[in-house]
This record gives sequence, C-alpha cells and structure tokens, in this order.
Amino acid sequence: MTRVLGELGEDKLLAQVFLRLNRNSRVVIGAGDDCAVVKFRGAKDWLLLKTDCVVEEVHFTKETNARAVGWKAMMRALSDFAAMSGIPEFAIITLAVAGKKKASWVGELYRGLNRAAARFDVAIVGGETSETTGPTVIVVSVAGFVERRRCILRSGGKANDDLFVTGELGGSIRGRHLRFVARIDEARWLTANFNVHAMIDLSDGLGTDLPRLARSSKFGFSIDQRALPLSRGCSIRQAISDGEDYELLFAVSPRERKRLQTRWQKKFPELPLTRIGRLNQRSKIKNQKLKSGYVHFRQRR
Amino acid sequence: MTRVLGELGEDKLLAQVFLRLNRNSRVVIGAGDDCAVVKFRGAKDWLLLKTDCVVEEVHFTKETNARAVGWKAMMRALSDFAAMSGIPEFAIITLAVAGKKKASWVGELYRGLNRAAARFDVAIVGGETSETTGPTVIVVSVAGFVERRRCILRSGGKANDDLFVTGELGGSIRGRHLRFVARIDEARWLTANFNVHAMIDLSDGLGTDLPRLARSSKFGFSIDQRALPLSRGCSIRQAISDGEDYELLFAVSPRERKRLQTRWQKKFPELPLTRIGRLNQRSKIKNQKLKSGYVHFRQRR
Repeated sequence: MTRVLGELGEDKLLAQVFLRLNRNSRVVIGAGDDCAVVKFRGAKDWLLLKTDCVVEEVHFTKETNARAVGWKAMMRALSDFAAMSGIPEFAIITLAVAGKKKASWVGELYRGLNRAAARFDVAIVGGETSETTGPTVIVVSVAGFVERRRCILRSGGKANDDLFVTGELGGSIRGRHLRFVARIDEARWLTANFNVHAMIDLSDGLGTDLPRLARSSKFGFSIDQRALPLSRGCSIRQAISDGEDYELLFAVSPRERKRLQTRWQKKFPELPLTRIGRLNQRSKIKNQKLKSGYVHFRQRR
Repeated sequence: MTRVLGELGEDKLLAQVFLRLNRNSRVVIGAGDDCAVVKFRGAKDWLLLKTDCVVEEVHFTKETNARAVGWKAMMRALSDFAAMSGIPEFAIITLAVAGKKKASWVGELYRGLNRAAARFDVAIVGGETSETTGPTVIVVSVAGFVERRRCILRSGGKANDDLFVTGELGGSIRGRHLRFVARIDEARWLTANFNVHAMIDLSDGLGTDLPRLARSSKFGFSIDQRALPLSRGCSIRQAISDGEDYELLFAVSPRERKRLQTRWQKKFPELPLTRIGRLNQRSKIKNQKLKSGYVHFRQRR
C-alpha cells in the first residue's frame, strides 16, 4: 500500500471500487491482502501476483541514487511476497520516464532492480517504457507461488494470539528504506517450522498495518508500547508512524512462544524478534497515536 | 511497446538493458515478445505475464472520458495476449494519480477497466494507488495461460510465409483506440484451426511492428502496399504509420491460404482478413515510409 488519494482514505476508496470488480472461480484472494492469490491450470501450488510502484517526489527525490531506487522498487514488491510466505519468481518492470531523463539513469535503475531480483533468484522477464511529462513512475509486477498450506493471510489471526515483529521500527527514512532486504527467508523459515496464523509486512507503519491485520482477522489488539523494538534514536511515535520498515508482523499461538523465541535466536541471531502484544476481542490502544498511522516521507521533509 | 525514450530507440535501449538481466530456468521467453512466457510449478500450460501502461498527455488527454481510458488501458494489455494466442485470467491495476484528481474519476476509470476485463472473464485481483505530482499513469498487469503447442511467438515465421492482417489500418486516433476489442477470439480460433507460425499485435503501427516480427523470425518481407486494408479516409502512409490499430499480423504457410480465407469469411464475416505480402530472404520495401514507423498521437496533435 502506498499513499492516500487526496482526502479519501485509500482503503475506503479501494474498498468501494473493488466491491464491484469482476471475479472468476480461479480467484482465491483478490484485492485486500498483500498479494493476490489465484489458482493456475491444475498446479498444486497457488499463483501469487503483486504490483507495487514508486514515484519520484513521493518515494524518492531527484537526488536519490538511481540504483538505490531500483533496489527499493523491487524489494517493496518482494516484501509483499514475504508477508504471504510466498516465493517470488518473475518480475516485469514498467517505467513512465520523462524524455529528458538520461538513458544512463535508466540503466542504473535497472542495475538496482536486477540486483534486488537476483538476491531471490527472481527473473526480470519484461519491461515497458513510456514517456511522461511529469515525475518518473516505476512499477514492479511480480509473480510467484506459495504452497497452499503455507499461504499466510492477514485474516487468520485467532483470539489471544501473540503478535511478533521482526527487526526494529522507525527511522527508515535515514537510509534503510533504500537498502532493506525483504524478509522472505525469515517468513519461509517461520512457515516451515511454526503454525503462523496471520502475517503482514510493515510498509505503512505499525500504526496503519497492525489495525489492518487485526481488522482482517476480526479482532482487536493490545500493544505494550514499552516493548516496541525502537531503531536507534527513534521515539515510540516514530516506531508507530514512520512507515517503510518492511518488517514482518505476525500472529501465532502463545503455545508456540517459547519454542519460537528460542529457535529464532539460534537461526537469526542478528535479527531481533519481539513480542509486542496480542490479538484480543476488543481493541485496547493505550496510546492514541497508534491510530495516527502513516506520516508520509514527503510530508515530513 | 509504447514510446521511444528521448532520443534512444526503445528497442535499442531495452535490448542493452535486458541483456544483463537475471534469468532463471523457468523462463521460456523473457523480454522481447508480446508477453513473457514462463513455466509454473508443474502446470502443463505456460504462464503468460504482461504489463502495459497508459500515460495522461501521451496516450490520453485531460478531456478523455475516464471510462474510455480504463477500457483502453485494459484492452492494450489483453491485445498482447491475443498476439500470443493466450487466454488472460487475472489483472492488477496500479495508479499514480494526482491528489487533485477526483475520486469519481478513479471510479469511472475502474468501471472502464472492469468492463474490458469482464469482456474476457478476466478478474481484477488487486490494485495500488499512489500519488504523483504529475500526469496520471495507469499500469495494467495481466497473467494468464497458453497451451504450449498454441503459443505463437514473433520468431516462428518461415520463408515465403503469407502475411495476413485482420481488420483495417490507420486512423485509430479518430476513436477506435478508445473502444477496440482485443483480437483474442480471433487468435484462439486461428490457433485451433491453423498452423500459425508467427504473430504480433499492431500497437505501434505496421511500419514498426512488421519489421519487428520479420527481424525476430530472421527474414525480410515484401509488402504490396496496394493491398493494405485502409480505414475509411486513410492514406497508405497512415495505415503504415498511425499505430494503435490493435489488429493481428501473422505469418502462415501459403499452403493454408485458401482454406484460411474461406473459413475466416464464414467465421468472422464482418472482419476483413487481408494478405498483405510475405516473408522472404531479403527485405524489399517498395515504399521507404514503411520504415518511418510510429508517429505518436501526441506528436500529431
């Protein structure tokens, strides 16, 4: 998810629009989760589809290194695969580029896209380039798969599930948003070893994405803000609102807690895993700032 | 394919970039044909992937009806499926929209997208909306399938193959570019009944797309310009250069000619099918204007 459209909340606008869209019998999950999930021609595994975009002057500036922009554009889409415990396989790039942009910029952009794709053995299988009179728009479309029993939706959370986040939150604008690695390895390890009930990637910030997961699962949540894993120098407010963390937030039974924490620390000793709260019948948000959601980079500059 | 990027020919720029891209063993055809063709998880049929975009001030104007823009954006991508004899199944929409654009405009856009998708039972399974400070960009990503033996590439043309085009060429800007129907039914009928060697859809105009098909097939071509099926009021030059015809151009053995023409006329009595020339060892272009290629709408206004 990216930016609100004018004054309408994106979720609300899209919800209205999506209610009326054509569907067919091969659709497992349409709009509304991190990826679309569909059936493909008798294959046992499900086909996952995702597109995401980054826009000049919104997600990056004229000064941002083109290779870093490419890396970010690809990793954002791959992060949505992580959220479903999916494996990305193929990507297609679509560029709307101002005519005055140098070909060398596009070349560097593709180096970044390709390097991020290669990190997860994703093949870039196509690209369109169109001119625009305005800011550059980069759209990355990714296809891949997930085994049916390992596909994790936002909606599977159960009452009293523990809520865990990977990594640290806040302050991504200082640089991490341009060089993060999608948590695909971590998500795959989780679903190979634990019964994860619900998962989402934190792209818009905990304050926006946690309510999304909880709402999808039809539960409330309670969070211990003192437990939040803050990036160095970040406040609780920043950890909740900054966005672009690209960490995983997931719900799992408290019965798994001890084994999960022990095994995680052995497997990923350098990546924190933090229990920040739990799903429950009614939302108890101790700090109203959790509702404030995504404060966009451009608004904060 | 859409617009050239600055002064570099798009094909040349993309060719340089694509040479260095990561691939994997599941890729059958990467960049360079109408759709990407890949293998998916043991499915017998191939997975086809395509993205295409339309850009405000390039492919449509501020005055263009939003529903017509949506129809066009979807049909352009579906037309690339027709070119491979593929069946589209799922679409994802990505919008970069100026904040000042009314939500009602986006709603109408989606009505057009959805109506075009429903025409071929394509399900719209997701959408992203991002803000931009510039012109609106609409990206449509489509996934679908083709049976292996019915997948038609640009590269399969053989010496002395007849070249056929469907419909009439030129003058699309007068309205057809906003309301055309992708030639999916026609392409599927062709590959169910005939041994089509190579196919492409005419998006950039015969003068650009015919050389693409011939080059991919490693042949030249000769065209009888007097045979070209001109749209009413159009010159030969327009039929060659206007672009946005979204008709099929295909190569088939002359042994099939008579049966093809007879059966086509029975099956599609209202749609002309015209033999315009043939593939041969060396290119004989009687009129140099065939090389002039795509004169872009915006340039001609």
